[in-house]
Amino acid sequence: MSQGNIAVPTAAQDEACPINEVLDHIGGKWSIGIIVAAAAGPIRFTELERAIEGISRRMLTLNLRKLERDGLLVRTVYPTVPPKVEYRLTPIARELGDSFATLTAWAERHRHAIAAARRKYDGQPGRPAGGQNL
Amino acid sequence: MSQGNIAVPTAAQDEACPINEVLDHIGGKWSIGIIVAAAAGPIRFTELERAIEGISRRMLTLNLRKLERDGLLVRTVYPTVPPKVEYRLTPIARELGDSFATLTAWAERHRHAIAAARRKYDGQPGRPAGGQNL
Repeated sequence: MSQGNIAVPTAAQDEACPINEVLDHIGGKWSIGIIVAAAAGPIRFTELERAIEGISRRMLTLNLRKLERDGLLVRTVYPTVPPKVEYRLTPIARELGDSFATLTAWAERHRHAIAAARRKYDGQPGRPAGGQNL
Repeated sequence: MSQGNIAVPTAAQDEACPINEVLDHIGGKWSIGIIVAAAAGPIRFTELERAIEGISRRMLTLNLRKLERDGLLVRTVYPTVPPKVEYRLTPIARELGDSFATLTAWAERHRHAIAAARRKYDGQPGRPAGGQNL
């Protein structure tokens, strides 16, 4: 079967970020959560922390910095006491909104089926156990 | 600002896979490439290897196994000599096609802007260097 017409992510031919790497950055579990949470408008660190259940302060900080570095998030510090820090999506990141909402809905819809598939897979003889390293 | 109405991925309340974890599995750079490459129909290991530039045999094997375990990919072995092995998407995985095509196109469109944003970020004084650990 020819794969010639399929838009598969490929390694970069130039100095721009490889598509694979870009997808890896934006596709991570926390990035998606942050972008979805910030889609409605500027949002503060503590609001993000509450909105994204299970994220640690450290992971939130690292992921915010990563998204800021990628030009997907703008961090604004207001010189109040204490300083107020807000994050908002850039226009590039706002384009991801619909796709991420679709993905999140997909995950919600199918997470039970996925859990069942894993239990079935792990229960088969001759399978690598548990998939912990996958 | 209230985040009450936003569909942010949250930790699981039950035994199903948490949305975060599901998104992490399907959102990885290689998973997206594999699912996009397999979208057109059954595909063989060597065809996937060629279609996804930069993937190693080991990473392809691990990611195929992960997607099979999640119930997103079916592996069929035909008893020929040598055995022919084909992978095809399950109906659940086929639902991801449009979102992933959109994401891949987004990454292609903006990878130069993202690379430029990183260079700018890394060039600023007082920034954590390089972002290698992000």
